[in-house]
Amino acid sequence: MAKLKVGMIGGGGPGAFFGRVHLRALSLDGTRELVAGALRTDPKAALASAAEWGIRGFGDWREMIEARARGRLELDYAVITTPNNAHFAPAMACVEAGIPVLCEKPMTMTVDEAERLAARVKEKDVPFVLAHTYTGHPMMMLAREMVRRGDVGRIRKIEAWYTQGWLATALEKDGQQQAAWRTDRARTGISNCGGDIGTHAFVAATWVSGLKVRRVSARLNSFVQGRDLDDDFNVTAEMDNGATALITATQIAIGYKNDNGFRIFGAKGSLEWRQERAESLLVRAGECDRTYWIGGGAPFFPESVGSYLRVPAGHHEDFLEALANLHCTMERTIRRRRGEEAPAPYDHPGAETGVAGMRFVAAAVASSGAQGAWRDV
Amino acid sequence: MAKLKVGMIGGGGPGAFFGRVHLRALSLDGTRELVAGALRTDPKAALASAAEWGIRGFGDWREMIEARARGRLELDYAVITTPNNAHFAPAMACVEAGIPVLCEKPMTMTVDEAERLAARVKEKDVPFVLAHTYTGHPMMMLAREMVRRGDVGRIRKIEAWYTQGWLATALEKDGQQQAAWRTDRARTGISNCGGDIGTHAFVAATWVSGLKVRRVSARLNSFVQGRDLDDDFNVTAEMDNGATALITATQIAIGYKNDNGFRIFGAKGSLEWRQERAESLLVRAGECDRTYWIGGGAPFFPESVGSYLRVPAGHHEDFLEALANLHCTMERTIRRRRGEEAPAPYDHPGAETGVAGMRFVAAAVASSGAQGAWRDV
Amino acid sequence: MAKLKVGMIGGGGPGAFFGRVHLRALSLDGTRELVAGALRTDPKAALASAAEWGIRGFGDWREMIEARARGRLELDYAVITTPNNAHFAPAMACVEAGIPVLCEKPMTMTVDEAERLAARVKEKDVPFVLAHTYTGHPMMMLAREMVRRGDVGRIRKIEAWYTQGWLATALEKDGQQQAAWRTDRARTGISNCGGDIGTHAFVAATWVSGLKVRRVSARLNSFVQGRDLDDDFNVTAEMDNGATALITATQIAIGYKNDNGFRIFGAKGSLEWRQERAESLLVRAGECDRTYWIGGGAPFFPESVGSYLRVPAGHHEDFLEALANLHCTMERTIRRRRGEEAPAPYDHPGAETGVAGMRFVAAAVASSGAQGAWRDV
Amino acid sequence: MAKLKVGMIGGGGPGAFFGRVHLRALSLDGTRELVAGALRTDPKAALASAAEWGIRGFGDWREMIEARARGRLELDYAVITTPNNAHFAPAMACVEAGIPVLCEKPMTMTVDEAERLAARVKEKDVPFVLAHTYTGHPMMMLAREMVRRGDVGRIRKIEAWYTQGWLATALEKDGQQQAAWRTDRARTGISNCGGDIGTHAFVAATWVSGLKVRRVSARLNSFVQGRDLDDDFNVTAEMDNGATALITATQIAIGYKNDNGFRIFGAKGSLEWRQERAESLLVRAGECDRTYWIGGGAPFFPESVGSYLRVPAGHHEDFLEALANLHCTMERTIRRRRGEEAPAPYDHPGAETGVAGMRFVAAAVASSGAQGAWRDV
Repeated sequence: MAKLKVGMIGGGGPGAFFGRVHLRALSLDGTRELVAGALRTDPKAALASAAEWGIRGFGDWREMIEARARGRLELDYAVITTPNNAHFAPAMACVEAGIPVLCEKPMTMTVDEAERLAARVKEKDVPFVLAHTYTGHPMMMLAREMVRRGDVGRIRKIEAWYTQGWLATALEKDGQQQAAWRTDRARTGISNCGGDIGTHAFVAATWVSGLKVRRVSARLNSFVQGRDLDDDFNVTAEMDNGATALITATQIAIGYKNDNGFRIFGAKGSLEWRQERAESLLVRAGECDRTYWIGGGAPFFPESVGSYLRVPAGHHEDFLEALANLHCTMERTIRRRRGEEAPAPYDHPGAETGVAGMRFVAAAVASSGAQGAWRDV
Repeated sequence: MAKLKVGMIGGGGPGAFFGRVHLRALSLDGTRELVAGALRTDPKAALASAAEWGIRGFGDWREMIEARARGRLELDYAVITTPNNAHFAPAMACVEAGIPVLCEKPMTMTVDEAERLAARVKEKDVPFVLAHTYTGHPMMMLAREMVRRGDVGRIRKIEAWYTQGWLATALEKDGQQQAAWRTDRARTGISNCGGDIGTHAFVAATWVSGLKVRRVSARLNSFVQGRDLDDDFNVTAEMDNGATALITATQIAIGYKNDNGFRIFGAKGSLEWRQERAESLLVRAGECDRTYWIGGGAPFFPESVGSYLRVPAGHHEDFLEALANLHCTMERTIRRRRGEEAPAPYDHPGAETGVAGMRFVAAAVASSGAQGAWRDV
Repeated sequence: MAKLKVGMIGGGGPGAFFGRVHLRALSLDGTRELVAGALRTDPKAALASAAEWGIRGFGDWREMIEARARGRLELDYAVITTPNNAHFAPAMACVEAGIPVLCEKPMTMTVDEAERLAARVKEKDVPFVLAHTYTGHPMMMLAREMVRRGDVGRIRKIEAWYTQGWLATALEKDGQQQAAWRTDRARTGISNCGGDIGTHAFVAATWVSGLKVRRVSARLNSFVQGRDLDDDFNVTAEMDNGATALITATQIAIGYKNDNGFRIFGAKGSLEWRQERAESLLVRAGECDRTYWIGGGAPFFPESVGSYLRVPAGHHEDFLEALANLHCTMERTIRRRRGEEAPAPYDHPGAETGVAGMRFVAAAVASSGAQGAWRDV
Repeated sequence: MAKLKVGMIGGGGPGAFFGRVHLRALSLDGTRELVAGALRTDPKAALASAAEWGIRGFGDWREMIEARARGRLELDYAVITTPNNAHFAPAMACVEAGIPVLCEKPMTMTVDEAERLAARVKEKDVPFVLAHTYTGHPMMMLAREMVRRGDVGRIRKIEAWYTQGWLATALEKDGQQQAAWRTDRARTGISNCGGDIGTHAFVAATWVSGLKVRRVSARLNSFVQGRDLDDDFNVTAEMDNGATALITATQIAIGYKNDNGFRIFGAKGSLEWRQERAESLLVRAGECDRTYWIGGGAPFFPESVGSYLRVPAGHHEDFLEALANLHCTMERTIRRRRGEEAPAPYDHPGAETGVAGMRFVAAAVASSGAQGAWRDV
């Protein structure tokens, strides 16, 4: 079985760790390989990076797409891991060229861009995966399957959160690159905290529950002096089934590295997952709590999830494996379309989720600007 | 050292477990004893209950106060543990008679009653303790002292919650007494979930932080069909220092017995406490998390808290001991006023906290009725 | 219902905190009261302590027993909380006088004493409870009931441990009283760590499992220089059903206050309890872990255990409540013998457990002295 | 930078999941690739497997070594993942041919083989890594560095355990392949549980502490009827500095998937790590517990460990990443020997650890056969 060939757009800068993360995730299974890249904006730097990585380099992503179009480059799909403001153009170009895309989130800078991109993805029927990494985590997938098969009953309330502390001080003023672009409206868009991690909480709330947000009332804060965009993001949401969701994210919770999680309360039971202890999923109902542990072969995983697991019972898979699972989904989709044998791909977030996320953040920003008045999503 | 003599008002009914709870808490140290009680509304039943408990019975609390006034009953303080709608009258009567009061929460049915009571407490300078039980828990007291001495710096954000599941079904229709009076507007007031446990979350948010709520935006839900009052209570609060507090309570989270807790995020560090693991307190700051464990003699307890501990390092004290600590505070206050030797009483919640809690719930109900518009507290 | 009247022997010294602990535990329910005591060895000091406690004092425990015999003192039972080497004499005297005894552990200084005492308890049929406090903890009782009703199947292996760190340095040389008598052969007997906390691990292993120790292979260490007795205690035990039990205790594990616990592995499932998180009990079997939480009214408590709980679901009861439960068991036993109404007393450890514990420690000391050669218990 | 080329011996059978695991671990970073393999014993099956994996196949590992010797195959190192009884021959052959080896554990079937192999590794100075996977886990590496720099002081006691439950029934009789070869003396050697997972506990105890085992007293059990080899393994060990280590492993603890861990008690503090919550490391000393969380960039990781991390603070790396780290160590060693730039390789377990492990198990089996009499290692 030949390896899938992957091209990367962005990700090659010295502080741009996510390129390496995708390299690892796509390499993980030994069934996909990075073969080409337009890794940086500056053509020279892009070529140098590619040489360093040992792949075929392009000075511009347009050239890479062009090379493929002319049959001078084999490329099964592209990974887009540029800064937020540079997702849209290459994503759209890939889609137009019929190249499947695995795109970092947020999908675009504006709702309008997101809608246009999603529309094209649909029209062209191009595989498109949006990198909400933890949706590839088996325990988050399991939670979703449990909800879907009715384990918790009709959902009444959702709590989804993403609690970090790394921006509790004005790191952006010390030249920290990750902080700098995230807190810069030009590069990050209308929301820092909401766009960066609030969307993850939003996806946890909607993707796991299967519900949509109808309208929101939000309060965004900017606690660190001199910061333009939000570093704290609090949304009360009304879901399309009447449930209430509390969707929050913060970057000022000192000591909290990555406390991402959700609790779902239904008429029959409750579900809880926290990334800090990602290897287990808590179900509360009946006389005792039930804790499910990650690990291949566990009988409670439906095949749709179990087929993504790589190591046996008790050993953990986490972030890189979750991201690799999104690449797996892309791989399975492509192989199946080609008529190769492959397990069924899971329905991980795609372009529609990207649109929903952009609309959610836009509505939250609008509501917060209007003293928390409700805004439709 | 003679034991303090305590009288109880309410608490003697067959389903009214809280009378027994107070009996235990006040008995715990062997320095206080229950000597008299007007335990039920019906005089005959009240006398029968008292006989069963082996204390001097009164058919009506007015008679008990009267007996003391005439020197026919020694009584150092009274415990009020009637249903919510029957706190105000006996509390006011005790205060008028100069009898110190340890009163169950919520203090009254209305803001107006609360204000009148608090004013009288102040004018008469009568010791008054409001039974927010977990404020007597040493780890909650420790959290407060840490905030007070500046360990977390200026507070930016607070999360306080109380998550329960016991009212996820219409228990009140099955004749469950605890459910029946709590969901009955006549006996419980304008809010069920908010008044019953939302106030505990409110106290966690304000008493531990030392901050006051300036205004609120709220969304109350009533998820169980046929239920008049809220069983889910969500408040976004603006604190008097500009911090944001998310104060939530719910009774529909199946499998959650008593998940009460708070997280406080300051400019220097974070604090987290959860009742489910009440014996430890988490401080996050610097390169690692720090976990403090309950237990007498631990050097990190300031004397004001350490003097309340009863068992050595590693052994736990919880609910009954916390409630006993409120009785301790009452005892210390009374003994000191008499010139007896006693350690300094901790400043546990009193009548002012009762007023603040009533105002908070009232504002939340008003805001929720106005689509979440902000309401001053 | 009249309160039971309790007399205390020992417990009144300034560093002897356990007297106060028993005072609180017996007072807790409001149905028992301390009325008399021979609280210290020195008669004058004993009387002074009693005065301070507000109870009737005796200069010597013999006088207290005598007073009761002559009808000059009402006494329903006695609590013995003297140092280890002073348990035997008053316990035996009480038993001879027909006074029920709640005795601190270890029951005596030698196996011979233990056997003589247990024999007399049996002959005279006097209620006798041995204060292995955590056997009164509802979750430990629940674990025992689960084993008894077959939830884990035939037991194959047991791990029971008690891990502390307070004696990791030579505290006894700094005049710390608790350390001084525990590490002093004359006052504590042949084993410090084994006798003090190894016996608790032994009781966890045997009392919860319902198994007996047949023989042991032990390694005792004395890690702190200049210390005569063991501060680390490791036993491999063969149980009477062929199971293997690892029973360990240590006092040199810095930072571990009170990590007492057990794991029981049977042919059908596993059970785990840790005092550090005492409020929950873990059952492992089938596809997920099951966690049971403490709290009154929970349906999984059999009546024999549930009748000991005092506060509703989710609130915790721990050390003092556990000790109070042993007093409850004494109270229920006494009331039932008198024909009063009382729930059935649980079969908490008595004199036979005391004998077994003494034999266990003696065999472990012998085995360790013989390079770990197996010694029958 | 060219990818390293890896050959695999074994690992291609249908139930032999570990080949796939190594494939993933070595592929993970995108800097190594599997190019060749002698994946099964049967030549035809071996070639078929290789074809399926998309690599160059050999019918026999001798042919693969031969091909490299003749310059017909580029191979930077070999991975040996055959059953236990087939490690020695190919490992020795690779070493003789100067091919670096990453070998699954246990290294060989007998102490004699292990010693011969280790001697050759030393003489030929061939890079050799033994796949004790969790020694590649950053938190276990961190624990080792903390011990090494003196954080816990002189070590007094160690507990190391590996608790599993998957062999609690006679799975080997149902044709489960993993169970079948592990419980078969011919294929697995003198010990099942000890050799399979007891060695991991042994490595945790010695590799993290830097201590050696001097002698052991052991009790091995075979709880499941009809099973020849041990399924439960309990060792009391005397370390070369006088410390006591309790090293245990079991396969009959129902519901425990992979509870591997250690606690190290020193004169200055304690360390605890459990694989079930592998992402954090607990240090106990002083007034509070300290919890360190995994995640790239954390300042408490010394460079020697930090350079192995792939994802930022708060995201987890676990089993596959740990195994990948052993491949990294191999890669770094090889690149450095060639004069390429590479970070310093960590001193992960090599052939000497393999010898020590084999001696440890042999001594334990001998001691258990002699009623637990002490046996030198």
